Amino acid sequence: MWKGRNVVVTGGAGFIGSHVSDWLIAQGAAVTVVDNLSTGFREFASPAATFVEGDMLDQALLDRTLAGKDFVFHLQANADIRENLAYPRKNVEQNVLATQNLLEAMRANGVKGIAFASTGSVYGEPDVFPTPEDAPFPVQTSLYATSKVACEGLLSSYALGYGFSSWVFRFVSILGPRYTHGHVFDFVKRLRKDPSTLHVLGNGKQLKSYCHVEDCVAAIMTAVGATAAAGSGYWVHNIGRPDMLEVNTSISYIVRELGLSPKLTYEGGERGWVGDSPKILLDIGKLRALGWEPKHTLESSVVDTVRYLVANPWTMDRR
Amino acid sequence: MWKGRNVVVTGGAGFIGSHVSDWLIAQGAAVTVVDNLSTGFREFASPAATFVEGDMLDQALLDRTLAGKDFVFHLQANADIRENLAYPRKNVEQNVLATQNLLEAMRANGVKGIAFASTGSVYGEPDVFPTPEDAPFPVQTSLYATSKVACEGLLSSYALGYGFSSWVFRFVSILGPRYTHGHVFDFVKRLRKDPSTLHVLGNGKQLKSYCHVEDCVAAIMTAVGATAAAGSGYWVHNIGRPDMLEVNTSISYIVRELGLSPKLTYEGGERGWVGDSPKILLDIGKLRALGWEPKHTLESSVVDTVRYLVANPWTMDRR
Repeated sequence: MWKGRNVVVTGGAGFIGSHVSDWLIAQGAAVTVVDNLSTGFREFASPAATFVEGDMLDQALLDRTLAGKDFVFHLQANADIRENLAYPRKNVEQNVLATQNLLEAMRANGVKGIAFASTGSVYGEPDVFPTPEDAPFPVQTSLYATSKVACEGLLSSYALGYGFSSWVFRFVSILGPRYTHGHVFDFVKRLRKDPSTLHVLGNGKQLKSYCHVEDCVAAIMTAVGATAAAGSGYWVHNIGRPDMLEVNTSISYIVRELGLSPKLTYEGGERGWVGDSPKILLDIGKLRALGWEPKHTLESSVVDTVRYLVANPWTMDRR
Repeated sequence: MWKGRNVVVTGGAGFIGSHVSDWLIAQGAAVTVVDNLSTGFREFASPAATFVEGDMLDQALLDRTLAGKDFVFHLQANADIRENLAYPRKNVEQNVLATQNLLEAMRANGVKGIAFASTGSVYGEPDVFPTPEDAPFPVQTSLYATSKVACEGLLSSYALGYGFSSWVFRFVSILGPRYTHGHVFDFVKRLRKDPSTLHVLGNGKQLKSYCHVEDCVAAIMTAVGATAAAGSGYWVHNIGRPDMLEVNTSISYIVRELGLSPKLTYEGGERGWVGDSPKILLDIGKLRALGWEPKHTLESSVVDTVRYLVANPWTMDRR
């Protein structure tokens, strides 16, 4: 369904966006990447994509870029959850306002299909595990997740009000090549500077689920493919794996892969920081019912990430 | 608990805000109203309140106004649900950005208590009636409700991240004196111009729950009073009545009260407009458990509203 289609990938120089672009280009789509390179790397963007350097708050740029396009993968975001309290406006601006600007540029150009990267952290601290898409109405615990919930609402409102087709994906942490933030990246980067010690935020016992970026891209494309012919509509899917890993186990994979035996020190309790979730496990039954199945294990996802970082130390030098 | 305290009421020249201000002043609080008079009326604002005319997008004004204050009732909003698709940015600006500006002004001034008017329409089109506060994660059906969900998340995030005490109230439609928008107002206003015909959006069979503004104010004060001593926290309460009314029944009360027998014409199906809810009934058990009970019936709420409008035709002339 993608051959010859004109697709925009926001955040296409970022981790997930660059993999989505590569996949689309392999399918024969013409891809235009929009990225302000604030956290993305120019090197990550598919060489075969048209690269537009610009910010999502630049409405005129978005209006121009969306002209003649067929579909949007919206993967640009402020993704720094941990710093959300230091810059309380950033999530509203870079996520909510950015997403509305994009939707308005789509509307102005008659583009009506959009797939959006939300987050499993919209479930706050759920009581139900694995957490399904229709879990009890959550209390938001971070400005990051709040902004993503707002974006989800924009997408559903545009679907209902303006006939958009909107797909929302609630991710666990995604791992794999080109992963350049979050705890695996931080740990590898810090161990590179000081191989003798590793300081851990939280008690190391937080239970997290991860998903490999290849499985993530396959999941997105499976869900969009399943309902793309439906005309307008709104679909929400969790993306994750059926199992969890203690942060300490993840650390054991990392240090083993690096051949190190650092002294571990801990700070704080069951949450690494305010807004951190002590436990994440999403119900992925809805996507599985469409035929998708994750192929990478938790361990191979962590190991793949470490190997990529070791082979590409420049990604750590620039952060 | 309010005597001698310095309280800000945003939207204090509006329908609910003016009643909240009156109540606080009767309790001995010093009230400062902030209102841009875009939909509020200067006449509604309590004469005993300090009146600050200004917009919530004016950060400097908010920063000045919050100095030395103890608590905020945040009742300012873009409340026009029906027009949400004609002005898609208005809800994000006047609700999300306005609320974050207010929270930032509070943070800058060390003010940490806030009660906020959300809406029962955050439940979208629920499957569970009466709808409890922890209903299944809803799909947002309007930009208005989307913006309110975002504001709720801002309040919970500021509670968790910055130690705020935040109370969120999800209202059904509130009726009573000074009610100047929504369907009872529209019907009375239109019947005043043309007593022979009344055109109804939808099939008239939508089931709505209403609550009288006096009961609404009592509910807010009951909930805030119950947990004000708890230190920081986040509390969500539905406000409504345990019963519903067909729009057609509401119309029968209105025309009876006005002594009219107009010809009724209908347009559309079970929804009056895109984003309208065909049925609203909120579970008010949580507030009842605190000792609150609505005193007005659905009928007396409608009748009270009509009588106010008949006695104050200037409110219809200015809209």
